[in-house]
Amino acid sequence: MTRIPFDLVQQAVFEAFRRAGMNEADAGVCARVHTESSCDGIHSHGLNRVARFVDYIHRGWINLEGRPTRVKRLGAIEILDGDFGPGILNALHSTDRALELAAEHGVGIVALRNTTHWMRGGSYGWRAADRGFVAIAWTNTESCMPAWGARNTRLGNNPFVMSVPRAKGHLVLDMAMSQYSYGKLQLTRVKGAQLPYPGGFDSEGRLTAEPGPIEQSMRILPIGYWKGSGFAILLDTLAAVLTEGLATHEIDRVGRGSCGGCSQVFIAIDPRQLGGQEFTDRVADGVVDYVTSSTPAEDATEVRYPGEAQLRTRVEQRAQGIVVDQGVWAEVLALAGRAA
Amino acid sequence: MTRIPFDLVQQAVFEAFRRAGMNEADAGVCARVHTESSCDGIHSHGLNRVARFVDYIHRGWINLEGRPTRVKRLGAIEILDGDFGPGILNALHSTDRALELAAEHGVGIVALRNTTHWMRGGSYGWRAADRGFVAIAWTNTESCMPAWGARNTRLGNNPFVMSVPRAKGHLVLDMAMSQYSYGKLQLTRVKGAQLPYPGGFDSEGRLTAEPGPIEQSMRILPIGYWKGSGFAILLDTLAAVLTEGLATHEIDRVGRGSCGGCSQVFIAIDPRQLGGQEFTDRVADGVVDYVTSSTPAEDATEVRYPGEAQLRTRVEQRAQGIVVDQGVWAEVLALAGRAA
Repeated sequence: MTRIPFDLVQQAVFEAFRRAGMNEADAGVCARVHTESSCDGIHSHGLNRVARFVDYIHRGWINLEGRPTRVKRLGAIEILDGDFGPGILNALHSTDRALELAAEHGVGIVALRNTTHWMRGGSYGWRAADRGFVAIAWTNTESCMPAWGARNTRLGNNPFVMSVPRAKGHLVLDMAMSQYSYGKLQLTRVKGAQLPYPGGFDSEGRLTAEPGPIEQSMRILPIGYWKGSGFAILLDTLAAVLTEGLATHEIDRVGRGSCGGCSQVFIAIDPRQLGGQEFTDRVADGVVDYVTSSTPAEDATEVRYPGEAQLRTRVEQRAQGIVVDQGVWAEVLALAGRAA
Repeated sequence: MTRIPFDLVQQAVFEAFRRAGMNEADAGVCARVHTESSCDGIHSHGLNRVARFVDYIHRGWINLEGRPTRVKRLGAIEILDGDFGPGILNALHSTDRALELAAEHGVGIVALRNTTHWMRGGSYGWRAADRGFVAIAWTNTESCMPAWGARNTRLGNNPFVMSVPRAKGHLVLDMAMSQYSYGKLQLTRVKGAQLPYPGGFDSEGRLTAEPGPIEQSMRILPIGYWKGSGFAILLDTLAAVLTEGLATHEIDRVGRGSCGGCSQVFIAIDPRQLGGQEFTDRVADGVVDYVTSSTPAEDATEVRYPGEAQLRTRVEQRAQGIVVDQGVWAEVLALAGRAA
């Protein structure tokens, strides 16, 4: 592990994307978002995804010319087609459009179809909150998790995001429907460790905290067992219904990598037109104060609100540099055409 | 256990509510909704809640004259004040108003504050779906669950509902943020059984599937550990922000029983104005077929979609009578002023 200043990370990612064929403006935006994710401590969808994104460009799975176009407008709802453009650009465009609609109608919904991996879902929650809006957003994905009571993977892990703006630090929830990601399983296995709680079933159907057997069976656990399974099913169905786009069983047939052809929903609400920012802050402060002043459990030193850890990591890494894995960093530098 | 025909159950609940002081129309609606919940197999918010509801009336915690009134209108959003009226009536009114707004704007949001327990959240998802609408709804509650990493209860279990209409059977998700309800813990303890999966922590912070120690510690487990904890926090905050109403920490101070003074959100979307009912059916059928044709796990015989079990139970119990616990049934008959 080593620390690299934010600007240097962003510059290297930018160069990697430029070399992969992105224009300057697009590469700049995507490099910023990947770097911000790593700066918040979410490397899984930051630096760690740079090489895969470049690979997808080379395979023709991402259409660098793809731009979201409006298919339909219905009151406060718009359906956009993402034309398999870069997922970050499509999702940012959709978020911003949902904010515009919310500014006009109180609530705005953008339903984006035929898009590609949006990387960190939380990026769009933070963006909405930074602009003073509430957001609820989700994406469906290719299948990677069995439904409850099933052996084979027929559900997406369908990340779900909710955010509420707050002057002292936004509340941002960003969660997939699986208890752990495959990335977390791999990291845990490589360390020779166990998961903190059972993460799935082995190939004989035994619940286990051993990552290896779960990676082999692909029987990762939905959050809350049957509950997360049901939630994933509803998120998938609703994403496809609202976008007039693809559901997980159809994304599975597209064959353009993780999330290639997926459907995303961005709901924005303008609280300034309701109780106002001051009222929103008072509510959110009240909730945060109540939760964070809980008595910590035996193995905990503090109780945090959703978004707190990312914000703290962001401030620290903006000042001290981003902690990067040297292998991943060397890979990004190589893609940028630079020596490590 | 014995079986009682739907109409007889409904009549007895109706009489119990009449004797508690409800007018004929209100008692009729509330009796139907409680009976439908039991008919769908959800006794916990059906027959089992009749006595507690009557008790709340007697204590003055529910205002039988309370009616939802509009506080604010903003485009496709309306804020209503429930005036501590019967939760079912307030929630039905809000659902129907959200559907009207969605018919007009594509999407409609009703934010209802100062209401009381809505009983089964799924009731409102089924109602929207029966009328061809998509629904997303939730309520906050008094605190009953510790946040992740905490010892004491500072989160509501904040039930969350999503539904998509489908000709062959709607998709309806209705889930609380706790892995198990206190009712389930009690039932399991009385049977001398264990929970199927760990349901919380004992008073020393050990994760356990023994219901008794969890009831004592009140350290019930959020679904997905830290994830459900975060989700509960966001649902609470957003409910209070949108309704300009109370959050969990404030409901805790109201002192009018479970959910007295809570905040609820009803989001409706009209899919007929988007892809149309036929398209919605095709998407939902595709998802359902993919999921339900999964290979069952070792201990499963089938894989179901959310809402399937309730619909099946409903059809069976409509024909064969509702299976009721004799103690609960005797209690309802006594409240109705009849001999058991």
